[in-house]
Amino acid sequence: MKSEILRLLKESDGYLSGQQLCSHFLVSRTAVWKVMEQLKKEGYEIEAVRNKGYRLVDSPDVMSRAEIESLAKGRWAGARVVYYEETDSTNTRAKEAADKGGGQGEHGTLFVAERQTAGKGRRGRGWESPAGASIYMTLLLRPDFLPIKAPGLTLLMAVAVAKGIRKCTGLACKIKWPNDVVINGKKVCGILTEMSAEIGYINHVVIGVGINVNQERFPKEIQDRAVSLKQELLHSVRRSELIAAVMEEFEVCYEIFLKTEDLSGIKEQYNRLLVNQDQDVKVLEPGNEYEAHALGINDTGELMVRMKDGRERCVYAGEVSVRGVYGYV
Amino acid sequence: MKSEILRLLKESDGYLSGQQLCSHFLVSRTAVWKVMEQLKKEGYEIEAVRNKGYRLVDSPDVMSRAEIESLAKGRWAGARVVYYEETDSTNTRAKEAADKGGGQGEHGTLFVAERQTAGKGRRGRGWESPAGASIYMTLLLRPDFLPIKAPGLTLLMAVAVAKGIRKCTGLACKIKWPNDVVINGKKVCGILTEMSAEIGYINHVVIGVGINVNQERFPKEIQDRAVSLKQELLHSVRRSELIAAVMEEFEVCYEIFLKTEDLSGIKEQYNRLLVNQDQDVKVLEPGNEYEAHALGINDTGELMVRMKDGRERCVYAGEVSVRGVYGYV
Repeated sequence: MKSEILRLLKESDGYLSGQQLCSHFLVSRTAVWKVMEQLKKEGYEIEAVRNKGYRLVDSPDVMSRAEIESLAKGRWAGARVVYYEETDSTNTRAKEAADKGGGQGEHGTLFVAERQTAGKGRRGRGWESPAGASIYMTLLLRPDFLPIKAPGLTLLMAVAVAKGIRKCTGLACKIKWPNDVVINGKKVCGILTEMSAEIGYINHVVIGVGINVNQERFPKEIQDRAVSLKQELLHSVRRSELIAAVMEEFEVCYEIFLKTEDLSGIKEQYNRLLVNQDQDVKVLEPGNEYEAHALGINDTGELMVRMKDGRERCVYAGEVSVRGVYGYV
Repeated sequence: MKSEILRLLKESDGYLSGQQLCSHFLVSRTAVWKVMEQLKKEGYEIEAVRNKGYRLVDSPDVMSRAEIESLAKGRWAGARVVYYEETDSTNTRAKEAADKGGGQGEHGTLFVAERQTAGKGRRGRGWESPAGASIYMTLLLRPDFLPIKAPGLTLLMAVAVAKGIRKCTGLACKIKWPNDVVINGKKVCGILTEMSAEIGYINHVVIGVGINVNQERFPKEIQDRAVSLKQELLHSVRRSELIAAVMEEFEVCYEIFLKTEDLSGIKEQYNRLLVNQDQDVKVLEPGNEYEAHALGINDTGELMVRMKDGRERCVYAGEVSVRGVYGYV
């Protein structure tokens, strides 16, 4: 009920009558009043006027199940939220829920944490996850296609994050192939996709997303490579709104992906956002390094590059990394 | 120490002196005596003769960490055993250990259970797992190759199981593509391989193996399709010896696989064991069914078939299933 009341407050232009809320939810006036008191405690500024009703004056940067669910616009992506003040890693939570089954283990559940004690980066590395400023979230998917198609999902999420950030903030963020989101060459978002599969059958895919939102500074070791939205905007961003925007974009992208089970319907959008597009890049293969010109991704998400001798080549994510000839990106 | 003493007892032709055991392990005579008493309790028949020492007269069908480890002949596959009297599913245990890290999470750990309360079959189905007669085990691997290569591992395990059973029992078991092991057309072993992967990077692979060993009968619904080794042999089989034999075979197969990261070095062995080899089969694709002649697997484990019009075609595991034109296999 809390998520729904919050949604109604947000969607209402004027006052929301207590009586109407009571009959809508079939509860007492006291029950409605209790929810309003809870919301006030969480930081929402709610005005209550006799004979008029309730009005939401201001929402703080609250990340909570009710707040995120009240903002969700899609049909399934993030429509169900599992929220933790603190947890080890949202990817781990999502995988565990998927293995257990039940409601939280269903397609589209979003796991969100204010703080992670064992945040995960790629290849077993860590991901620093202090409280208060970042988004740490993991979307659980149960796709009905072959495991070999799954790597495309991580590129979909990169598009969804980039478009969500652009929509919420107007910042011109870009994608660094395959799935980092960057602003002016600095990383604002990392994505870690993990799959559990049998032969020819996906158990589940979890897509973990870490976004630097309201940090005012970063540790010295990474300040040349990391940036937050606040550092660029000089004001805070409401994280729950950004989460909702990313989920909405992801849902659209995913349904396009399903039609062909590849990136053919997303490729153009992706390549327009691609910071490496039409740039000279360094391709770092194990034991081999060469410069080439990046042409954009193909239908399966590989990066097409033209080498100095004019030949074209596909570069696979995971096998190689790509750097700009100048600087990090 | 228990695994080691058991191994020494098994390898010794005559009596093993208590004094020698004391100095070998740097422990007291009482400590050695205690281990012998434990082993007797578990069902081992051990003779103790003054001035001669200890001699193992008979080993029962014990599955325990000490018993399996004492029989292990390989360098890593199953050299470390985690044993459960009862657990939900050995695949689940192995995945959890892998996620946690630490010693049990290392490459080659073998998880064995006497009974599973939530045994897993393919695609979320269950696997009946009562106590006393079966092998339920899961081998944890941490391969350093690309996720796309992993499906080959399940075919390796099928070879290892078939060869292990042949070695321990002499039974002419065969492989039903891709990874069932059968005797006279009835299933004696099922394999469930699960992978956790990022893009281009394998976190871990777990290969679950269920072998029907000493069952005297099966439920009516499956008695036409399932068979145990005991039903064929008319006597019991020591499960720990079979486990050790399978692990030894797997280790050999795996190291051949690593050289080329495909099945080219195993293909011939596999095809000799393949019950479908040179047989007419029914290929069941979603929404399509046709008869064809099975030619054997290729380097990546796909089944090559010749269709009626003479064209050859690769059949992918997971997408389709293959039946004999007559009967189950």
